[in-house]
Amino acid sequence: MQFRVALAQLNPTVGALDANLVAALDAYRRAAEQGCDLVAFGELSLTGYPPEDLLLKPRFVADQRAALERFASATGACAAVVGFVDERGGVLFNAAALCVDGEVAGTYHKRLLPNYAVFDEVRYFEPGTGELAPFEVAGHRIGITICEDMWSADGPHVALAAGGAEIIININGSPYHLDKDVEREAMVAERARSIKAPIVYVNQVGGQDELVFDGGSFAVDANGALIARSPLFVEDLRVVDLTAGGEIDPALSGDDELYEALVLGTRDYCHKNGFTDVVIGLSGGIDSTLVACVAVDALGAEHVHGVAMPSRYSSQHSIDDAYALASNLGIDIRTISIEPAFAAYMEMLETSFEGRTPGLTWENVQSRCRGQILMALSNEFGWMVLTTGNKSELAVGYFTIYGDSVGGYAIIKDLLKLTVYDLCRHVNARAGREIVPENVIVKPPSAELRPDQRDDQSLPPYEELDPILALYVEQDRTATEIIDAGHDPDVVRRITRLVDIAEYKRRQTPPGVRVSRKAFGKDRRVPITNGYR
Amino acid sequence: MQFRVALAQLNPTVGALDANLVAALDAYRRAAEQGCDLVAFGELSLTGYPPEDLLLKPRFVADQRAALERFASATGACAAVVGFVDERGGVLFNAAALCVDGEVAGTYHKRLLPNYAVFDEVRYFEPGTGELAPFEVAGHRIGITICEDMWSADGPHVALAAGGAEIIININGSPYHLDKDVEREAMVAERARSIKAPIVYVNQVGGQDELVFDGGSFAVDANGALIARSPLFVEDLRVVDLTAGGEIDPALSGDDELYEALVLGTRDYCHKNGFTDVVIGLSGGIDSTLVACVAVDALGAEHVHGVAMPSRYSSQHSIDDAYALASNLGIDIRTISIEPAFAAYMEMLETSFEGRTPGLTWENVQSRCRGQILMALSNEFGWMVLTTGNKSELAVGYFTIYGDSVGGYAIIKDLLKLTVYDLCRHVNARAGREIVPENVIVKPPSAELRPDQRDDQSLPPYEELDPILALYVEQDRTATEIIDAGHDPDVVRRITRLVDIAEYKRRQTPPGVRVSRKAFGKDRRVPITNGYR
Repeated sequence: MQFRVALAQLNPTVGALDANLVAALDAYRRAAEQGCDLVAFGELSLTGYPPEDLLLKPRFVADQRAALERFASATGACAAVVGFVDERGGVLFNAAALCVDGEVAGTYHKRLLPNYAVFDEVRYFEPGTGELAPFEVAGHRIGITICEDMWSADGPHVALAAGGAEIIININGSPYHLDKDVEREAMVAERARSIKAPIVYVNQVGGQDELVFDGGSFAVDANGALIARSPLFVEDLRVVDLTAGGEIDPALSGDDELYEALVLGTRDYCHKNGFTDVVIGLSGGIDSTLVACVAVDALGAEHVHGVAMPSRYSSQHSIDDAYALASNLGIDIRTISIEPAFAAYMEMLETSFEGRTPGLTWENVQSRCRGQILMALSNEFGWMVLTTGNKSELAVGYFTIYGDSVGGYAIIKDLLKLTVYDLCRHVNARAGREIVPENVIVKPPSAELRPDQRDDQSLPPYEELDPILALYVEQDRTATEIIDAGHDPDVVRRITRLVDIAEYKRRQTPPGVRVSRKAFGKDRRVPITNGYR
Repeated sequence: MQFRVALAQLNPTVGALDANLVAALDAYRRAAEQGCDLVAFGELSLTGYPPEDLLLKPRFVADQRAALERFASATGACAAVVGFVDERGGVLFNAAALCVDGEVAGTYHKRLLPNYAVFDEVRYFEPGTGELAPFEVAGHRIGITICEDMWSADGPHVALAAGGAEIIININGSPYHLDKDVEREAMVAERARSIKAPIVYVNQVGGQDELVFDGGSFAVDANGALIARSPLFVEDLRVVDLTAGGEIDPALSGDDELYEALVLGTRDYCHKNGFTDVVIGLSGGIDSTLVACVAVDALGAEHVHGVAMPSRYSSQHSIDDAYALASNLGIDIRTISIEPAFAAYMEMLETSFEGRTPGLTWENVQSRCRGQILMALSNEFGWMVLTTGNKSELAVGYFTIYGDSVGGYAIIKDLLKLTVYDLCRHVNARAGREIVPENVIVKPPSAELRPDQRDDQSLPPYEELDPILALYVEQDRTATEIIDAGHDPDVVRRITRLVDIAEYKRRQTPPGVRVSRKAFGKDRRVPITNGYR
């Protein structure tokens, strides 16, 4: 089939209508220059996805409509499929416009609206209804669908194909989780075979709060064979001749893929929110180590600032490990002992705590002294604090609210502890040298908030804990079901209870990159007040 | 019409299936003893509303179904309408069961599922479909509908009435906002007139995280005339003879209503989460003063603990005002100067800040010293910290993250500053004596974080600020529209920008009672990363 398509895999910023328009026009011009018949952008390309409650502002909807008109007026013979919000009598549709020869030549309304997991589309949109028909572009009949539409085997692509569509263009705002690219390609290949037509799948790329969009746009032929693929996690303009195919970038998987998701999510959260630099409390532990590695790859070593904050309970090896890491990464590091503030609080609280021997309270005070220092540096120098907690800790509440949980972005909050270890080993393997000091990987984890403290005094070993958390948090099993699956009943009851009662703390933690099928955040909306055991 | 109905306005705890069942059975027995033909409970009476993502756990759904069967098996000739989750082949329905003579005699599935504002019902439920028909109870034909069903003029009550229903029972989980009771009664009266049948409206009562359910259950006759009403904000079992009527409790309005909403929300959040006592930083300002008043009414004076935390910039009158308030309320108060910790941080940061003259940073450090003290008292004594910020501050980010925003519950977070003043005056009027010291009401607001600081050095007067915030935050107007409405362009641009860039801070603040039509929290889901200006 003589048809040349460009897959415009762009990185919009939600709400930045002017900047998104400029980028779309630039990609359009490049595609047109390469003789394309059509260029396809992502879902809601001009607003960025997901615009959330900006959609409740009628003026915002009008402004993005104006941006669409400006885009359309710049088009020529090369057609463009652009995502936008279509307003009809006060009702909104998640829509795609076919723009060609200076105008909007056709509009499609998304039929299937996801309203699960991180998606809330029914909050904003009505589903499209009525007859489905392909559009004529450069002598071919083109069917347009949007994201979720394609995930149903009897979605609108079926009626479009039956109505004569020779090609399906599917535009997406499809957020990443591990191995999602593989799922998408398999699903779309199956759809192509079922309707015997090629499908062009275009996804946006970039970080947006909790979500990272991985891109990975691609095209398959009528047999479901892959004929072009954009890289993951970067902008791309891939040109595909539907007969001859295009370039197929290699896929990523496992640790490579996870690590790149963290890097892009971190970079975009910082830069899109106006931050160039970050500050990280370096404890010499595995979590802050991984955060520093990701930050350096995201922002550059000169933009990452480390702080070691020893207390009376810190071991020398922790400080040594933090300094070794900083040296390996080429980032600056300073030491600020928390002892003066800790001593001050002990004095200030002496009267209130008379006759008591506070234990956990003093541990929390130390952690909050560190949070204070990080925030003071953040306030004074404009550095965003990167939070270092992982998903295992966040799940069971093994952190101090307003202490180690302070910060703007918690980049590893969706990684269970064992995955943190995996990625640290991956950092060294990838670099071909020791970046993460070996001692950081082999020593037993400790918060160092009292003498000789180790995580395994408070928690079961992570080899036991992480699988229970995966079942309880990510797979919505109950304690009873997890016990029935063979886990230790006392451990399961204790851990699931810890997860439940930590909900109030988790609510006050920063966002971070979602990389699993169910992250803490808008993906998991459990009540704080919750009597279910 | 000879038909006696009981309106069981109960206060369930979300997820506490056993406790909710026991309370429902108790109300059932009392209604049966009073010769009722039918007793109606609230929406999802056995799970509590809203159960949120507990519904994603199949085991939870099975457990609440078992609770329904236990309830049904205890019924006799008196029928009961009970809210529950009906699972059919893996699909969930927000349902009502008609229980009578020991079994579930009929089931209704909610037709209209709210998925706006604080509601996410499409995330969990499918809407009911198929024929609508009334049930026969004690010789009368009863139509059952659920909450949102009634808000549409052509909702299922129309078909039910056409199908012969003589009475409509509408069960609700309808959260409070100011004057919602008046809206509900007017709407239901209109529905009754339109179908010429009496309607019984039953609502749950109690606090659940951000929401407070105000109860205010009532019945109207076929002319829409009110024939019975339960009080707002308390549990009640109101018995109504549909011919003779029942007792009509007085309505509340304005400050009375708002204040009771805050009291109930605070009491339930504390008690349902296992806290008896709270601690409040008392600055002598208007916000912490109102919070202390509400806390005393919610929990009792002996459960409320005040802390004055002066710094080098605190005025003596602030401390005097805090002590006068504590004395008027009969609560304990202690003074802990933050000076030692503040001095310690200045020393610890001396090297890092060399050659600089930090301003705002030192203000934030002071605020966080106070947060540290409150959290240490909370950790050691098990007192929940009540956060004292109001909606105006929360909107423009005029608070210190991890400082004055720390705490478990932010009870006045949905009150604009001018409303805080109104309610403080109301506290004195209601008591008929000075509880809020006059000086607290008349002095200019100040954070006292630098010499002679006043709020109006950083913000426009609240008389100018609050109306702009109401338009921008609660009514989704854009800056341009607010300027067009006659507000000062520079002020509007500055304020709306402050609201936008404070989103990351608000995300890390505690929940609090929603009392407006749009509160911060799950009611307003704007992106943090947001390029729209």
